[in-house]
Parts: sequence; C-alpha cells; structure tokens
Amino acid sequence: MRTLIIVSHPKLEQSNTQQFLKESAAPLDDVTWYHLDAQTHFDVQTEATRIQAADRLIFQFPLYWYSAPASLKLWLDTVWLKQVAYNESGGLLQGKELGFVISFSQPLAAYQIGGAEGFSVSELLTPYRALAHKTGLTLMPPLTIPQFDYQTEAEHQALLVRYQQYLTVAHPQRFNERAEWFLTQLQSRVNSDSGQLLVDQLMERQEQLERLQMTLGELKTGESE
Amino acid sequence: MRTLIIVSHPKLEQSNTQQFLKESAAPLDDVTWYHLDAQTHFDVQTEATRIQAADRLIFQFPLYWYSAPASLKLWLDTVWLKQVAYNESGGLLQGKELGFVISFSQPLAAYQIGGAEGFSVSELLTPYRALAHKTGLTLMPPLTIPQFDYQTEAEHQALLVRYQQYLTVAHPQRFNERAEWFLTQLQSRVNSDSGQLLVDQLMERQEQLERLQMTLGELKTGESE
Repeated sequence: MRTLIIVSHPKLEQSNTQQFLKESAAPLDDVTWYHLDAQTHFDVQTEATRIQAADRLIFQFPLYWYSAPASLKLWLDTVWLKQVAYNESGGLLQGKELGFVISFSQPLAAYQIGGAEGFSVSELLTPYRALAHKTGLTLMPPLTIPQFDYQTEAEHQALLVRYQQYLTVAHPQRFNERAEWFLTQLQSRVNSDSGQLLVDQLMERQEQLERLQMTLGELKTGESE
Repeated sequence: MRTLIIVSHPKLEQSNTQQFLKESAAPLDDVTWYHLDAQTHFDVQTEATRIQAADRLIFQFPLYWYSAPASLKLWLDTVWLKQVAYNESGGLLQGKELGFVISFSQPLAAYQIGGAEGFSVSELLTPYRALAHKTGLTLMPPLTIPQFDYQTEAEHQALLVRYQQYLTVAHPQRFNERAEWFLTQLQSRVNSDSGQLLVDQLMERQEQLERLQMTLGELKTGESE
C-alpha cells in the first residue's frame, strides 16, 4: 500500500494539527507527505507521475467554507485534466482509493441538521463524491478531527493510531485489520520476555475473537437462508 | 437593486460564454462586473467595501470538478473572514442575496441520479448552501447554462433575457415580475405610434392576466378553508 497525502493548508507551520499529523506520518514506510501551498503552478506530467506511484490518495485539509482551501482546488483544476487523470476507458485514477483527513474548529455534532453548521461532513463532500464517481476512485469514510487544540493527550494518542491506520491499513474501518495492525506495532516494540508473553496472549485472544466472529457470521447466514 | 457579479474563470478571454454574459450585463444600471482571476492577493477592507455596496451577489463560474474554480475559493478563504463578512449578530452579508450563474459542457440532464455526472447541481452546491446558512445570505435558484457553444441564436437571445432578469429583477422566478420587466424593456425601445399601440395592448393583457391569477388565488384559498 503506497499512500500519497496531499496536504492543503495555507499556514501549515502555524497549525498544531498539521504538525502533529506530519510527525505521525513521518515514521511510516510507503507514505509520502506532499504539501501543495508552496506552489502556484504545477507541472502536469510531474504531478501525474506522483499520482501514478500511489494506491491511496488522501486529501488532508482544514475545512474552509465547507470545502478544501483554494490550493487543493488549484491542483485539481490544473492537474486533473481529461486524458491525464482520467479518460473514457478509466485512466490513471481508476481503482485507486481516495480518503479524507479533515480538521475543523467546531465539535462534530455541529455538522448535522439542527446543528450550528446545519450540514453533515458527508453532505459537504458531495463535489468529491461526484469526482470519485467520474474518475473511478473508491471513497474511504473520512477521518474527521474536530477541535484538535482542545483534545487531551490521550485523545491525541488515539488520533495518532487512527491516523497511522487510515494511511496504511487495507480496510481501516474493519476491526480485525486494526487489531492486527496494533499487534504488529506492539510486536516490533517489545524486547523483554514478559513483554513477548503479553503479545502472545493478545494474539491468541485476537484469533479466538476472529473465530467467534466467523461462527457468528455463519449462524447469521444460516438464519437468512 | 445593486448587483455584484463575482466572476471566477482562469481563461475569461477564451470563454464564449463569459464574453456573451459580459456584453449582456454591460448595458445594465447598478450591475458591477468583477473578475477575480487577475489577482492573487485581496485587500480585505477593499473587498468588504465592494460587498457592502451590493444587495445581490452573483457567483458566476464554469463548473470545474463540481465546484467553482480555485480563484473564487481563494477570495472566500482570504476575504470572508469572521468579524468581516459575518459575525455572531449577523454582519455584512446578513439579508443580502446570493445567486449562481453556472456554465458546464454537459447537458443539464447529466446532473441527476443515473445521469453521466450522477449528482444534481443543487446537491453539488451544498457547501454554498452551508455558507449561506452561516452568513444569513438568501439563496436564489441557480441560473444554469449547459453547452453554450451548442446553443442556437434564439437560445442565446433567451439566455440574454433570463440573465438580465436574474441580475436585476427582485424575484426572477416569478412570472409577473419577468413580464413586467419585459414590458419596461419594450417600452424603452418603442418609438413609433403603432409600436406604442402594441405595447399598450400587451400591458392591458398583462393586467388582465394578473387579475385572473388573483381571482384564481382567492378561489383556491376559499377551497382550503
């Protein structure tokens, strides 16, 4: 899984959220951080090569007027041309994944009918949904980061894990894949015998859990027949 | 009615649609044409003064990736700041109108479920709907211009009328107000006695029509009581 994080933020250095995400992504293999705002012109062929090298594209940005900042739009307008990014028979983007890492200063509950913002994040992302529909990209459920600066240290740690999984795990919405990722991470960090014992036990529990889930799945299938 | 047309188009001179619209708007009083793309930086106070002078704002653009081109986004991101464009008690935009003049190269029927684009223009404009909700702007139904270059001369003439009405009439969706606008235009263009006779007759017909509509309205109200 090769992931390209396309970061759109006009004041990156001043953003605690983006600096945190940048540090969280840094140790990961096959993950590329690409900040758009330094450029005002894009070379189409260079950008096409960059996109081609990725399996998963992440649009990462703070919500400005219910959309990405202008720099992401400029990149799309100038690079995602017909016959470059897509064509009648599919093209460059076909079959790749498109994820979103979106931060905002309101609580998540503001984004719903009756909430302060009145529209859900999914509704606001409709233009990107149309874009995925057009180009053959597979959408991932967005990773939303509300009010980063008000979050506790524990919430930041949980975000780090969620973010790293979002960038690297095949299906970050599936519990088993997230658990597997967690055990692999733990494994690589454990040096003592007692630590290893803990990891082994966790792995055994995880296997038991997966067997139980499978049995449950079979029972449900039986019921519906 | 003072109208500010905010035009976002990176290649304005090459666009037949925009050149046609520019000429259509030129003879109108109290209508200002403002093209964003020449600038990469905006002075917030200058822009706020410009907005303040208008009762109706028009976002006019070709649909690029199901949204406005980057220049409109840059203008919004840098100018429509809290405490400038809006604040807790309403602010600069409160009570003004927001209209859209949107051109695209597909037929309108492409913009629906099952159509080539898969989403309606109304759905795609969700971020602007949220923006209007936030700032107290009243939305106007969009004026859409599909496939301008394939339209006939008669369709272009009809567009000119629709566009001029969209910019200047209080409620362009109401038949009576459009008819009134039309008669005023005719009046100002007629010089001969026989022409004046025609205008007088049209005006009389229009008055009869409005009286009939009013009677019909009263009958309907009576029914529902």
